[in-house]
Amino acid sequence: MSDYSAGEHGVRQLAQRARSDRQFVHQVLDEGWVAHVSFIDDGAPMIIPIYYVRDGERLLMHGSRKARVMRVLSSGVPLALCVTLLDALVLARSAFHHSMNYRSVIVHGRAVEVTGEDKVLALDLFIERFEAGRAAQVRRANASEDKATMVLAVPLVEVAAKTRSGPPMDDAEDMALAVSAGLRPIHTVLGDFEVDR
Amino acid sequence: MSDYSAGEHGVRQLAQRARSDRQFVHQVLDEGWVAHVSFIDDGAPMIIPIYYVRDGERLLMHGSRKARVMRVLSSGVPLALCVTLLDALVLARSAFHHSMNYRSVIVHGRAVEVTGEDKVLALDLFIERFEAGRAAQVRRANASEDKATMVLAVPLVEVAAKTRSGPPMDDAEDMALAVSAGLRPIHTVLGDFEVDR
Repeated sequence: MSDYSAGEHGVRQLAQRARSDRQFVHQVLDEGWVAHVSFIDDGAPMIIPIYYVRDGERLLMHGSRKARVMRVLSSGVPLALCVTLLDALVLARSAFHHSMNYRSVIVHGRAVEVTGEDKVLALDLFIERFEAGRAAQVRRANASEDKATMVLAVPLVEVAAKTRSGPPMDDAEDMALAVSAGLRPIHTVLGDFEVDR
Repeated sequence: MSDYSAGEHGVRQLAQRARSDRQFVHQVLDEGWVAHVSFIDDGAPMIIPIYYVRDGERLLMHGSRKARVMRVLSSGVPLALCVTLLDALVLARSAFHHSMNYRSVIVHGRAVEVTGEDKVLALDLFIERFEAGRAAQVRRANASEDKATMVLAVPLVEVAAKTRSGPPMDDAEDMALAVSAGLRPIHTVLGDFEVDR
């Protein structure tokens, strides 16, 4: 499996934390629930959190057709989006080496509107991500709901990933300090279904 | 306690999901660990995930002085940042009413560099957020570490919050459909300390 292009906006930080292999990127995107999307509106930087699903080599997002953000993004402006998973707090013996273990993926590109049969399939994917098999059980969108909903796709072409993992990396001369050091894992877990009556 | 200004970039979406009261904003910021920061570099939208702490009415962030992103942000360009907490998947009887329960805060502003005694205090806050009392236990930054680290502050002035909570809001005619509906809570929990030997 070949790597993505990091492109002109590629990660410029610590080389050992930069990754662009496809499998890693897919795993991060499939584990995350929300992307933050950065774009420019009227000359100002904007940001929104948005639910997404990965569909092969694209990310799908949806929202109200009336929402300003959807109008702006669907016009094809450049955007940058990021999905970040926190794995642990890294507690070192020195203040300087405190860190976080994380996995993050940044995608640069432009959104295109998804329509027709492709949109029908996309809307099902948003439901399937919540619960496999659910799209066939719920009432699907009627004509007015479908009209009110805009689906956007961002291709996974210009993609960069960063990650930190492992224990704290203290300086040798600090290893004997009388302070606890190590990791505090961060777990994101789905609780049991709370049925609505 | 008065409200923040939503400003010219204020949330324009569903009014019932917009909040700007200070206590709610503080709770979200104090529970989150990572902000996503949107800014413009060389005409293009950029995004980075970054650790932050709230210090009263400002957010503090830090990074390597050599990192391009720190140089750009410290130059005082406009930025937008967002902290999002996911609370639950909302599984409705119709595809259209599926949603997520969440709390999010968006701040627009510009960063200023934090220096001198104020920087010393800020660096301690980054450690204290990991573990109360820890700043006094670890080896604090030496001169070269201090020089290599840039601390930025963003004032909490132009702030908008959005939230969704509660059960799915299905249409009356869908309530009898034979499909389970309700919430799946999302919990983000800190695991036990894994000591580094």
